[in-house]
Amino acid sequence: MKGFAMLGIGKVGWIEKETPAIGPYDALVRPLAVSPCTSDVHTVWEGALGERTNLILGHEASGEIIEVGSLVRDFKPGDRVIVPAITPDWMDVSAQRGYHQHAGGMLGGWKFSNSKDGVFADFFHVNQADGNLAHLPNGINVQNAVMLSDMVPTGFHGADLAEVAFGETVAVIGIGPVGLMAVAGANLRGAARIFAVGNRPLTMDVAKFYGATDFVNYKHGPIEQQILEATDNQGVDKVIIAGGNIDTFSTAVKIVRPAGIIANVNYLGSGESIAIPRESWGLGMGHIRIIGGLMPGGRKNMTYLANLMSCGKLDVTPLLTHRFYGAEFIETGLELMHNKPADLIKPVVTL
Amino acid sequence: MKGFAMLGIGKVGWIEKETPAIGPYDALVRPLAVSPCTSDVHTVWEGALGERTNLILGHEASGEIIEVGSLVRDFKPGDRVIVPAITPDWMDVSAQRGYHQHAGGMLGGWKFSNSKDGVFADFFHVNQADGNLAHLPNGINVQNAVMLSDMVPTGFHGADLAEVAFGETVAVIGIGPVGLMAVAGANLRGAARIFAVGNRPLTMDVAKFYGATDFVNYKHGPIEQQILEATDNQGVDKVIIAGGNIDTFSTAVKIVRPAGIIANVNYLGSGESIAIPRESWGLGMGHIRIIGGLMPGGRKNMTYLANLMSCGKLDVTPLLTHRFYGAEFIETGLELMHNKPADLIKPVVTL
Amino acid sequence: MKGFAMLGIGKVGWIEKETPAIGPYDALVRPLAVSPCTSDVHTVWEGALGERTNLILGHEASGEIIEVGSLVRDFKPGDRVIVPAITPDWMDVSAQRGYHQHAGGMLGGWKFSNSKDGVFADFFHVNQADGNLAHLPNGINVQNAVMLSDMVPTGFHGADLAEVAFGETVAVIGIGPVGLMAVAGANLRGAARIFAVGNRPLTMDVAKFYGATDFVNYKHGPIEQQILEATDNQGVDKVIIAGGNIDTFSTAVKIVRPAGIIANVNYLGSGESIAIPRESWGLGMGHIRIIGGLMPGGRKNMTYLANLMSCGKLDVTPLLTHRFYGAEFIETGLELMHNKPADLIKPVVTL
Amino acid sequence: MKGFAMLGIGKVGWIEKETPAIGPYDALVRPLAVSPCTSDVHTVWEGALGERTNLILGHEASGEIIEVGSLVRDFKPGDRVIVPAITPDWMDVSAQRGYHQHAGGMLGGWKFSNSKDGVFADFFHVNQADGNLAHLPNGINVQNAVMLSDMVPTGFHGADLAEVAFGETVAVIGIGPVGLMAVAGANLRGAARIFAVGNRPLTMDVAKFYGATDFVNYKHGPIEQQILEATDNQGVDKVIIAGGNIDTFSTAVKIVRPAGIIANVNYLGSGESIAIPRESWGLGMGHIRIIGGLMPGGRKNMTYLANLMSCGKLDVTPLLTHRFYGAEFIETGLELMHNKPADLIKPVVTL
Repeated sequence: MKGFAMLGIGKVGWIEKETPAIGPYDALVRPLAVSPCTSDVHTVWEGALGERTNLILGHEASGEIIEVGSLVRDFKPGDRVIVPAITPDWMDVSAQRGYHQHAGGMLGGWKFSNSKDGVFADFFHVNQADGNLAHLPNGINVQNAVMLSDMVPTGFHGADLAEVAFGETVAVIGIGPVGLMAVAGANLRGAARIFAVGNRPLTMDVAKFYGATDFVNYKHGPIEQQILEATDNQGVDKVIIAGGNIDTFSTAVKIVRPAGIIANVNYLGSGESIAIPRESWGLGMGHIRIIGGLMPGGRKNMTYLANLMSCGKLDVTPLLTHRFYGAEFIETGLELMHNKPADLIKPVVTL
Repeated sequence: MKGFAMLGIGKVGWIEKETPAIGPYDALVRPLAVSPCTSDVHTVWEGALGERTNLILGHEASGEIIEVGSLVRDFKPGDRVIVPAITPDWMDVSAQRGYHQHAGGMLGGWKFSNSKDGVFADFFHVNQADGNLAHLPNGINVQNAVMLSDMVPTGFHGADLAEVAFGETVAVIGIGPVGLMAVAGANLRGAARIFAVGNRPLTMDVAKFYGATDFVNYKHGPIEQQILEATDNQGVDKVIIAGGNIDTFSTAVKIVRPAGIIANVNYLGSGESIAIPRESWGLGMGHIRIIGGLMPGGRKNMTYLANLMSCGKLDVTPLLTHRFYGAEFIETGLELMHNKPADLIKPVVTL
Repeated sequence: MKGFAMLGIGKVGWIEKETPAIGPYDALVRPLAVSPCTSDVHTVWEGALGERTNLILGHEASGEIIEVGSLVRDFKPGDRVIVPAITPDWMDVSAQRGYHQHAGGMLGGWKFSNSKDGVFADFFHVNQADGNLAHLPNGINVQNAVMLSDMVPTGFHGADLAEVAFGETVAVIGIGPVGLMAVAGANLRGAARIFAVGNRPLTMDVAKFYGATDFVNYKHGPIEQQILEATDNQGVDKVIIAGGNIDTFSTAVKIVRPAGIIANVNYLGSGESIAIPRESWGLGMGHIRIIGGLMPGGRKNMTYLANLMSCGKLDVTPLLTHRFYGAEFIETGLELMHNKPADLIKPVVTL
Repeated sequence: MKGFAMLGIGKVGWIEKETPAIGPYDALVRPLAVSPCTSDVHTVWEGALGERTNLILGHEASGEIIEVGSLVRDFKPGDRVIVPAITPDWMDVSAQRGYHQHAGGMLGGWKFSNSKDGVFADFFHVNQADGNLAHLPNGINVQNAVMLSDMVPTGFHGADLAEVAFGETVAVIGIGPVGLMAVAGANLRGAARIFAVGNRPLTMDVAKFYGATDFVNYKHGPIEQQILEATDNQGVDKVIIAGGNIDTFSTAVKIVRPAGIIANVNYLGSGESIAIPRESWGLGMGHIRIIGGLMPGGRKNMTYLANLMSCGKLDVTPLLTHRFYGAEFIETGLELMHNKPADLIKPVVTL
């Protein structure tokens, strides 16, 4: 089969590989639509996972089942499925503790384009199909379904980690596609004021669509100053970090109230350490919780998030700014994510 | 001063009373708008609190501060305020445990028209004003503000007790004003499908406005049958009980999934005991949680719920079906709650 | 192979059966020690699971691995293992929600001597071995290890469901082996006063060993009266029900404080419904939470509970009042559980 | 009255001051026993709170009520009381959110020897007596009661913030008196292995008494190396930081498992920022939660922690290594805390 791969750091291209063999609990899936992600950019151009040769890229896809293992119970060839970016071994002790993301070790649930080939291929392999796939409901098209692989669950996980509650004030720092879904997630958990911290007019508009009420352009002055002014120096109840870098945490600590939560869903690709300012953190006594975590995958999460789309309570269409048809455009999509033009949120490639 | 009071079981009327004296931490408030509640009906016509003589009724009001005690810090005469139905002693051990509703004993935080005179008067007394009042934001009118006293926090507490999460399926049994706010609360916590169980076309329409997606008329057959059919016999993740009686719990247990939650916010005015069907409850092993609780009051809750209205994310206008101007209409409003005509959700009386 | 089976309601005996076949994730285990449980008694003599023919009994065992499936990673023949009574399918959506006990439907994680043959046999089958078995640490003998199958996790689950916290007052109703482990669990979660409600002097002594501080004999008067008197009418923070029947809940509601928790781990074998007294339950408004649930199984739970034994912080020896050597004594042990002599807590049969 | 005060940075001595006036909710208390704390040392010799003149020191005391305000309900002159170091305004919105420690702003609940005079005086003032004092049970002597002011609740808060659960492995870094109580708290929440990280033989012995199972001397090599070796490179489930400085967090992140918790109860007196190592923190994706917080005060917490002592489940006697009689020894005690001889855990001065 063919796959679009990282050939080495900074180099991509199509390669030929064996179609993956599946075990008794696994499935072979053909992608119906895929989307390149910023993580693919990190992997290829920043070498975030180290040097890799001929690693098929991609972890965002909707698909059609081609073949299932003998012990798969709930899926059969021809079924259309949602495919989460995170596909853990559900028997693992970490999964039993509620953190399947770390089954088999830190971040071990992330397999596509990391510990195995990704979804930018004629076919891809899904382990523990009954636990890791979800049926695609009729009312959701294959392009929107791709947003369930990573963008929706990652953004919504930010809102969950922040434990957003009725009437709270939330700041979302970074409003690319994940940040926009963090805005939507915070809004759907009952936040009142939501500060969207970004820069591009397009994303500001889309943030408003998803429930943001206040807009902070980091080019117009320090974020902390703008948010403290807008909140009578009270700061916000919660901060969701969906962009920036290791320095963003310092800003977050300065704008959050005592006993607030800072929830990170941004992959921190470089830097030695995150600096937490001691005084703003209450000299270690302020009950400001700092947590960051990989999105939850698996069938339950996919099913429940899809429910929101089926009911019309979550519309991901505004995320899909660039639509392509044909595998040959996967590279185009990846280049877009690499270059991030002002009119881009996410590209989707229908196959 | 004058007050509209329960004269005895089944009898109401205007009486003269001394204006309440306030202590150093208290406030004297003049109501700006009030609303009679089903609880007032229970109190008067069902004798739910036992025989009472000359007890001023009412616990839903917005108001204006007339006088404050010497140690009140954050309020002054002339301030317009939101007044919660529940106004506990915040120093109590139960409040310290997170259940101020039961400060001073079971339901001890409920004082208006229970352990002291209510709000249907020229003036009323608020204990611990700094802890129990909230400033009324400019953007919220006094009529809408009355819905923050009880309807919004009670309905939303149902959604909180049910721990509604992203994409869940929720049934709300009883869609009077509290049930409608439970629908709104479930929706604002991220529920996907919401079953509204009621009867009247008007409330069904308003339930849809607040996020209900499925409608069950209990006159068209057993509730459990209708909901199980509509969910492929899976049942719902959560049930919020906002109406009915002690028998409603049996229905709730039958429609909820293993490990689901049944959250009651309906005052159970009569009957010996609630029956939990043993088999449907998993022989005691099904992790189906049953809880019921009085709404949380206090300044924090009022402020945060008001935030949702200020941001335009919660509009209570559809609840206010009957609007009156002048204290003489308080009795009219109470009679409406007593008779519940088909076009009624809540009356509000502006003073 | 041979197995000790329920032949029909009220009848038991040894039968011949095929040695179970194992799939790729499974293991075949030989029991090293086993213990009959009250559930076996319910199954055989009360027909709790309905009529069953030639169902091998038993769900409490420690064992030795005989054979593993091709995809089992962490276990190999010869390994000594802890075997939980609950062995779910970890890929199931219920397991992903944190309730593996209900994987495949209400109580679906309970397979031994329910949906498949039990452990009173030459060999038994364990599904998803990597998720459902735990290595037996060197310091724990095979007899004590059997208590990890059901008694320890069930009793401790009661303490977990009750969310026992520092300094709380807890009542444990029923102090057979599960109740004693509920006492131990409440004590290990930091309870201060622990009321042990029972009858037999032996169990009272053992309850004291596990941390009980107050002893209530239900033959000396109504439980509620005794506990309310002993607590200045305050009642207790939490109740764990580990014995009794459907009527025990009424007692529990009457002795628990507002906002308390009633946690049931007792299998409710008969009766139509559980009656919750309306007034004591705060008219539905008292925040008294009622929950009951099957113990959590799986590798993580077995490993962590075993840690307590390895460290010397939990000693189950006092539970093992009757010790037998040889499979021929399984029936003796079962009869003991059936007849419950005054000197019995649990029998264990070493094979 | 007389009080032992900070005269300025680095200078202490006895001064004369007016006996504090009390308001309607307040109490005037005479100390029965007091203990100097490391915080007093920070305040005086490190200027942790900035320059202060004639600030009476001390926040750990048991006492006797001398006078109560007109609205105090549950206390009267002559009552013997436990006095928490944290005495918030319970009406504050932060208290209503569950974080009374930050009532009135970050750390605002800490008043003694911070925003008002402390307890090293003939008399001291307690705000909101009904909410902030607890009756001293007969079975607890005044010396042991002093440990309830700060040492017990701070250490136990570490265990609570770490959400220690059955069978977990916990590391407590720093085993002075707070760390020892963190060991005791972790043990009482059901931890199995507890690593005590310290240096002095005395504290190691006492740590063992409180439930520590493993001992790490930071002078014998890097902490992370010792703990990773002792845990087969698995690390620990939870870390409680009760000593060290801003650099201790780096160690903590390196020894905690994915999805673990790092709970700080150590006052971080100096340094610009805490550095969280990016890779060990899972690139921001590892669900390693970092939180630090001031101990909870108030009547409920004092009462419940005292329950553990009344029941004999917590014995603080081993903490009290140095006992003095007479106010003139307060300075001696403070000097001991300043110099920390090897045989010191805590001094207590009976008045």
